[in-house]
Amino acid sequence: MISHTDQSAVTVLGLGPMGRALAGAFLDAGLRTTVWNRTPGKDRELVERGAAGARSPEEAVAASRLVVVCVVNQDAGDAIMRHGPVTDALKERTVVNLTADTPDRARDTATWAAEHGIEYLDGAIMTPATTIGTPAAVFLHSGASELYRRHRPVLDALGGTHTHLGEDIGRAAAYDIALLDVFWTAMAGYAHAIALARAEGVTARELAPFAKGIGTILPAIFERGAEEVDSGRFSGEDNPITSAVSSMAHIVHTSEAHGIDAGVMRAAEGLARRAIGRGHGTDGFLRITEILNPDAPGRPVATL
Amino acid sequence: MISHTDQSAVTVLGLGPMGRALAGAFLDAGLRTTVWNRTPGKDRELVERGAAGARSPEEAVAASRLVVVCVVNQDAGDAIMRHGPVTDALKERTVVNLTADTPDRARDTATWAAEHGIEYLDGAIMTPATTIGTPAAVFLHSGASELYRRHRPVLDALGGTHTHLGEDIGRAAAYDIALLDVFWTAMAGYAHAIALARAEGVTARELAPFAKGIGTILPAIFERGAEEVDSGRFSGEDNPITSAVSSMAHIVHTSEAHGIDAGVMRAAEGLARRAIGRGHGTDGFLRITEILNPDAPGRPVATL
Ligand SMILES: NC(=O)c1ccc[n+]([C@@H]2O[C@H](COP(=O)([O-])OP(=O)(O)OC[C@H]3O[C@@H](n4cnc5c(N)ncnc54)[C@H](OP(=O)(O)O)[C@@H]3O)[C@@H](O)[C@H]2O)c1
Ligand SMILES: NC(=O)c1ccc[n+]([C@@H]2O[C@H](COP(=O)([O-])OP(=O)(O)OC[C@H]3O[C@@H](n4cnc5c(N)ncnc54)[C@H](OP(=O)(O)O)[C@@H]3O)[C@@H](O)[C@H]2O)c1
Repeated sequence: MISHTDQSAVTVLGLGPMGRALAGAFLDAGLRTTVWNRTPGKDRELVERGAAGARSPEEAVAASRLVVVCVVNQDAGDAIMRHGPVTDALKERTVVNLTADTPDRARDTATWAAEHGIEYLDGAIMTPATTIGTPAAVFLHSGASELYRRHRPVLDALGGTHTHLGEDIGRAAAYDIALLDVFWTAMAGYAHAIALARAEGVTARELAPFAKGIGTILPAIFERGAEEVDSGRFSGEDNPITSAVSSMAHIVHTSEAHGIDAGVMRAAEGLARRAIGRGHGTDGFLRITEILNPDAPGRPVATL
Repeated sequence: MISHTDQSAVTVLGLGPMGRALAGAFLDAGLRTTVWNRTPGKDRELVERGAAGARSPEEAVAASRLVVVCVVNQDAGDAIMRHGPVTDALKERTVVNLTADTPDRARDTATWAAEHGIEYLDGAIMTPATTIGTPAAVFLHSGASELYRRHRPVLDALGGTHTHLGEDIGRAAAYDIALLDVFWTAMAGYAHAIALARAEGVTARELAPFAKGIGTILPAIFERGAEEVDSGRFSGEDNPITSAVSSMAHIVHTSEAHGIDAGVMRAAEGLARRAIGRGHGTDGFLRITEILNPDAPGRPVATL
């Protein structure tokens, strides 16, 4: 039975690409690292690098006061943690759950943890597995500040920037799904753009330098857009939503002429047309945030 | 009647935000600039800065050998150009059409232009109106190389980078709609993310710094992705499509729990699930390019 309970020991449950990257960074930082994965064999390289490979999750949990969980989703997290021997082993330990799921699930897991005397922080990783251990990694955390401060030194071994978003345990997951929404929608757009370009005889490699250019202009546009949404003033002076809809219609038309499904763009165009239909045609595209979520807080009453 | 026909004169038809920016950059570069817009009055500031405000499009066309057209779409472009007196005035002049529309419309306009003795280049502007005249502007052009070379000095007055994509007149529009696909889909994702975040009590301004971070990682991911698509090898080693679908489902679930339409993400998720259903679950997300466009050229036969 492995049993280090000091501050320099950490356990990682889940050895997918991300779990392996986390465990690897802990090892690189010189922490005593214990690992476990449902399907055996995924710990091989980590064990060669000095990790202790536990035979069961309860054994892995017993080895460290800090247990990092990183599996595909909270159903998988529950399948591991809500199992008698594991729940018992977790008592008085801290779980940092870096599994991506919804804010509701984070709140539910926190309630369960409290009922079982388990200290609980929820977190989210916003950058690819390859960034872990590098300055490019981005971690979000939520839950008790004291708990976060206590484990921060170990978390710092993962590199990158760590932001504690507040005590509301659902907050990291709220940011996470919103940011994944940006990411996966953009990726869907890129995949669709490539399909469209190829149908027009343009290869993905030919398109890529310009697609990168689009990526490059997004951060500044996102920043300005956030000001617009929070202030409720959507200036379409530089680029009205009617102009956006015209582009969207071209994309749909050309896609479908090539037999390429345009469901994503059709859905986006539909939202923009609803905003125009409500008299916002000279506004900017982000007016659709209010079509999507008419009850959002902070919206000036005057624009209701 | 205005009538400069030398290389230092240019006419701009269409004075929306982009047309005004183009005309402003030509003026700043010291070119004799003639402008016209369907709705009068939009030329006021440009005329104050030294532009000649034409009373009709044919008068505007007569003033310069190079006529830049930039209106909402090609229907609007046709409404201006395919009108007897204007078509006549355009004879032996060059039209650089920076109006965004589809490759088919560019080809159709080129055919019409050839029939009327009008020299024709098609182009697209990939950056916001505010970038015109600055190094950040990005222009794409297609059509006869000789024509492009001849007018390049005037186009350079617009600043930024100009790329001639080839003689196929539809090519600039093909890149344009593919790149607008990336842009507007990403913007739809950002708008949706903000709506979702606000429903969770997170303001757009709070989300923005992290959304900018997502924007920042996209260019490198786009570059790697293009290699995958062109080679037909979609490695999901770092991030399999099953993991993407799990995130997408969380986004849909949380959106709909807040009464927020998730049509865009539902459409994207559907594509990813189709790829998984065809046995590609361990591949990367960009495998959906082949679901979207099974006939794309360059795909290795082995993966058919
Ligand atoms: N990969 C990235 O670049 C990245 C970036 C940011 C965030 N994330 C997040 O990090 C988490 C882990 O992602 P990942 O990339 O490592 O791969 P993943 O494919 O999302 O998850 C794989 C892990 O989940 C485990 N798992 C799945 N179902 C299980 C179950 N019912 N019981 C126990 N374990 C189960 C797998 O174990 P088996 O080996 O036994 O199947 C494996 O350890 C996810 O929430 C993901 O969204 C990943
Ligand atoms: N704005 C940007 O940041 C940006 C960036 C990249 C590309 N573009 C592209 O640039 C082009 C122009 O865009 P924009 O931003 O200037 O504004 P826009 O709203 O797309 O277009 C407005 C212009 O189109 C004219 N127009 C519309 N219907 C017409 C018709 N039937 N007959 C004659 N003129 C008509 C308008 O004249 P009236 O004033 O008489 O209505 C005005 O001059 C578009 O293709 C757009 O996609 C714009």
